[in-house]
Amino acid sequence: MKYRIGHGFDLHRLEPDLPLIVGGEQLAHDRGCAAHSDGDVVYHAVTDAVLGALGQEDIGQLFPDTDAEWKGADSRIFVEEAAKRMRDAGYAIGNLDVTVILQRPKLGPHKMAIRENLAELLGCAVEQVNLKGKTHEKVDALGENRAIACHVVVLLKREADGAGDSA
Amino acid sequence: MKYRIGHGFDLHRLEPDLPLIVGGEQLAHDRGCAAHSDGDVVYHAVTDAVLGALGQEDIGQLFPDTDAEWKGADSRIFVEEAAKRMRDAGYAIGNLDVTVILQRPKLGPHKMAIRENLAELLGCAVEQVNLKGKTHEKVDALGENRAIACHVVVLLKREADGAGDSA
Amino acid sequence: MKYRIGHGFDLHRLEPDLPLIVGGEQLAHDRGCAAHSDGDVVYHAVTDAVLGALGQEDIGQLFPDTDAEWKGADSRIFVEEAAKRMRDAGYAIGNLDVTVILQRPKLGPHKMAIRENLAELLGCAVEQVNLKGKTHEKVDALGENRAIACHVVVLLKREADGAGDSA
Ligand SMILES: [Zn+2]
Ligand SMILES: [Zn+2]
Ligand SMILES: [Zn+2]
Repeated sequence: MKYRIGHGFDLHRLEPDLPLIVGGEQLAHDRGCAAHSDGDVVYHAVTDAVLGALGQEDIGQLFPDTDAEWKGADSRIFVEEAAKRMRDAGYAIGNLDVTVILQRPKLGPHKMAIRENLAELLGCAVEQVNLKGKTHEKVDALGENRAIACHVVVLLKREADGAGDSA
Repeated sequence: MKYRIGHGFDLHRLEPDLPLIVGGEQLAHDRGCAAHSDGDVVYHAVTDAVLGALGQEDIGQLFPDTDAEWKGADSRIFVEEAAKRMRDAGYAIGNLDVTVILQRPKLGPHKMAIRENLAELLGCAVEQVNLKGKTHEKVDALGENRAIACHVVVLLKREADGAGDSA
Repeated sequence: MKYRIGHGFDLHRLEPDLPLIVGGEQLAHDRGCAAHSDGDVVYHAVTDAVLGALGQEDIGQLFPDTDAEWKGADSRIFVEEAAKRMRDAGYAIGNLDVTVILQRPKLGPHKMAIRENLAELLGCAVEQVNLKGKTHEKVDALGENRAIACHVVVLLKREADGAGDSA
């Protein structure tokens, strides 16, 4: 297939006195993610979206949270592994669109840095990576700043698309 | 790129004695959206999906809710701005699929009118715009009719796609 | 259009002493879905994603839960109807990516069986169907194992795409 679509979702609880890492950037906040790795919802959801588009094992299968090796891991290694598998399968990023749901702090000041981080890890231009932040309007765990979530959609395209491979 | 994908999400609280506007239609209900603009989750999520596919600034950046100019605004102006930016970038709507999460009232009777509103604003045929309603089965803020949410996926396609622009 | 995108979402409450059916597989658990049909969130969300991509009536319109005919129905009939409508419209599955949100039990052991079920119902290869499970980190109804949800994105492609139908 010339194009493949993927979806990623991730959610982590926010707890006091932990760092809040989003898309490789540390945000100033009084709480952060309780997770086996560094709890980066953007990197985790992007990893799952790319692996999902490829139809491969997901992040929980490749990097089990019962495995001490990934304890406190920098989540960029997950995105790098997904990007490697994408290239090995003959695909490249068409584009991806990331939506972060976080009541506070504001994501705006970090938007470009996160897009650049993702573009570098995925081997594409920053114009192919989009990111937006939304609040959850004070309702439920997300709205009460007790959790952070992320939705990703990605479109992959076959790199070597000869004239006969139009499907 | 010939195709670009986008994702939009929006959520607003429902509060008594406010109008409930969904995709440009007013629904009969005992409550509506508390928001800076008219709180139309469909128009907001569609705007963000189109802007997201383009990799441009999101609705919160283009139309800050701290700006008095957008107080009580008709949200169609947000969709119109996204559509203009889409055309300026050389893209058109392939198709979009909108999922509204609302416990009640039922969205069915308004479905075709909303699709027509979106098709007109986005400059495409109504067949390229889909909309469905789901309940949240009485759980959490969405299920208790204290909030309304919307998910959108959109596929944009390059308008002037010459034979050499197959990627 | 050569490609069409669709989005599906479904959520059901989990209640004691009911079977838990996910993607056609029964999972061992102390609770299951309270629903008019068998409450299969994967089959329901996939049905809506395919119908949504086609711009056709959604699952709630085609199979109303007020209709006794669908009481306790095996949800595979919904996916089969969506697949038939897809073929009738001249489209086939490009690929789809399914994300199930379920606190417990683990979905991993059932992943391949569910992918095979979907591939058979949709008339495509298992490599075109992906499925992943995520928890909701113990927050809200999903995290407290009081509900199960599913997000789906699907890319359809036109089957008979002649040289002149490149858009
Ligand atoms: Zn995670
Ligand atoms: Zn809004
Ligand atoms: Zn259902």
